[in-house]
Amino acid sequence: MTNVFPVLKNDRLLRALSREPVDMTPVWMMRQAGRYLPEYRETRSKAGGFMDLCTNPDLACEVTLQPLERYDLDAAILFSDILTIPDAMGLGLYFESGEGPRFRKTVRSQADIDNLPVVNAEKDLDYVIKAVTTIRHALNGRVPLIGFSGSPWTLATYMVEGGSSKDFRRAKAMLYDHPDMMHALLEKLALSVTDYLNAQIRAGAQAVQIFDTWGGSLGHQAYQRFSLDYMAKIVSGLIRENDGRKVPVIIFTKNGGQWLESMVESGCDCLGLDWTTSMASARARVGSKVSLQGNMDPAVLYASPEAIRTEVARILAEFGHHEGHVFNLGHGITPEVDPQHAGAFIDAVHEYSVQYHENNGFRA
Amino acid sequence: MTNVFPVLKNDRLLRALSREPVDMTPVWMMRQAGRYLPEYRETRSKAGGFMDLCTNPDLACEVTLQPLERYDLDAAILFSDILTIPDAMGLGLYFESGEGPRFRKTVRSQADIDNLPVVNAEKDLDYVIKAVTTIRHALNGRVPLIGFSGSPWTLATYMVEGGSSKDFRRAKAMLYDHPDMMHALLEKLALSVTDYLNAQIRAGAQAVQIFDTWGGSLGHQAYQRFSLDYMAKIVSGLIRENDGRKVPVIIFTKNGGQWLESMVESGCDCLGLDWTTSMASARARVGSKVSLQGNMDPAVLYASPEAIRTEVARILAEFGHHEGHVFNLGHGITPEVDPQHAGAFIDAVHEYSVQYHENNGFRA
Repeated sequence: MTNVFPVLKNDRLLRALSREPVDMTPVWMMRQAGRYLPEYRETRSKAGGFMDLCTNPDLACEVTLQPLERYDLDAAILFSDILTIPDAMGLGLYFESGEGPRFRKTVRSQADIDNLPVVNAEKDLDYVIKAVTTIRHALNGRVPLIGFSGSPWTLATYMVEGGSSKDFRRAKAMLYDHPDMMHALLEKLALSVTDYLNAQIRAGAQAVQIFDTWGGSLGHQAYQRFSLDYMAKIVSGLIRENDGRKVPVIIFTKNGGQWLESMVESGCDCLGLDWTTSMASARARVGSKVSLQGNMDPAVLYASPEAIRTEVARILAEFGHHEGHVFNLGHGITPEVDPQHAGAFIDAVHEYSVQYHENNGFRA
Repeated sequence: MTNVFPVLKNDRLLRALSREPVDMTPVWMMRQAGRYLPEYRETRSKAGGFMDLCTNPDLACEVTLQPLERYDLDAAILFSDILTIPDAMGLGLYFESGEGPRFRKTVRSQADIDNLPVVNAEKDLDYVIKAVTTIRHALNGRVPLIGFSGSPWTLATYMVEGGSSKDFRRAKAMLYDHPDMMHALLEKLALSVTDYLNAQIRAGAQAVQIFDTWGGSLGHQAYQRFSLDYMAKIVSGLIRENDGRKVPVIIFTKNGGQWLESMVESGCDCLGLDWTTSMASARARVGSKVSLQGNMDPAVLYASPEAIRTEVARILAEFGHHEGHVFNLGHGITPEVDPQHAGAFIDAVHEYSVQYHENNGFRA
């Protein structure tokens, strides 16, 4: 496959991420290719399981494109799992039905950490890298493709616990009892994530997002040292321009609204916000340093289309007449949401946002 | 039983809640009477189940006092459940082993809400009120007794969902689709909580805490209107002085660190903080308006006593040479914690905090 791609037609997302003028606010949804869509469930049931979709570039491409067929979305996001890196490190990722992800091996000692390889993504995660190029070609310039990875701390929690956790007991005990050990693990993960995201960018990803799903479970000081510092290290090692265009980097720490000022210092282009943060106060706090992504509570999608539209209008008004807003949910869309409600959400963002971008110098 | 109680010997908690000088920082732990203690598990297994402890004033008293026998704590907290009010409203609280709390009836329509009575605590929750007086006598002036209730929004989530929830789907759909209905429910709950806490104060509680466990699941605007406003209403209706002494009110919204400024406006005396908030920045933000309670990550108790002591010292240093700090965990102590680690935590608070209270004019 060639890495020469069709010209991008809808670049709202890339413009907004760089705080350039747009005609309307771009919108995408975390987990937009997912279980709430019947067509996704059908592809998945034919394929076998979740990882069968992830490891097959054609199927990953198929489900990545499904929400674009239904909705007027401004971005595609690579369909994959956040735990591909620990799996490539040899931990043996598997899923048990009704349970979260599990690993056959855990990482609990210095020897365990010493034995972990740094991932060479083009070799060890070639199925993801091939999926990126396949999707980018299939998009045919419709919208940009977002690549992603889990953050080092988020990956570390699963590796130490052996799966999901409520209180991150073992990971936090390692952090407090053996900080050097935790730093050694995070260092290997930061190198691996950097390589992984750069491989995705070379393969066709036009923006990348670091999902720091569990950074917000840390104390404020531990967050800076054990999550944010490693994301900053990754950001500084990323390819920031490709094919003559900037490749924006989004950092999303769920429950990280108290730490926006220090997150800006990571050098990223955009901060993802969950719904506990006021868009107006976030914009005042970060000024013109970064763009902001978010931040509707995904549970609003359980309410009526009318209530959804009201909430979209409220968030747009909060952000106001400024550039640099990418509309999104504050976390992934949930499996029980009615697909028509997701459509009402996306349409409302476009419809109501035009007024905030008039006379802003935008030219298509 | 008489409501004339022995003189209070250790009033560090009450002084710190009112930002008065103390000789060392007072400390207690949310859920300090609980499953991590073998003596608690023994009492509970003899009694039958959790609710058999709550509904029997003598057993509730016994387990409330257990942690005081082991540790040099500066407060006792009433042993009870946060869901006593919905149970008294007729919803039928029960517990299934391995599951969270459940209700036989749910509240999902205007008719359901209309049918709910406002609780008359002295009649409908007499077992709690009796437990308060029993405990207060048994304490014999050792330390003050804290009473508590769940917040209206927190109680409402369980009542609408019928139990615990991950995404509060039904409660949030009601909030966004039928805000008037949700307000009617919260109004009845606010009246009930006010009556409940006042009954606890009359029965002997010397301070009260409102546990807003799920306020932090709301968007920042929804939090103000659907959680904080009702807590403010409760605060304004509480008995604030009893037996010649101020009865301080603590508000604790888990995950509420972004909203401290508006929480202060509720009129409470103290804000509880989880561990995601920096003590130093919280103090700067609230100034001298309220005291602060918290905020060690309970997962630190899984680390070694040495690491626990280091973290206690760090938090004390962050708060610095000021009055108005009640040390606590940022959430309840978890069942798997080694009781010796809890002891190391409590001793460290007293040992390390003396230096911050020297020359502050304190006289015992």
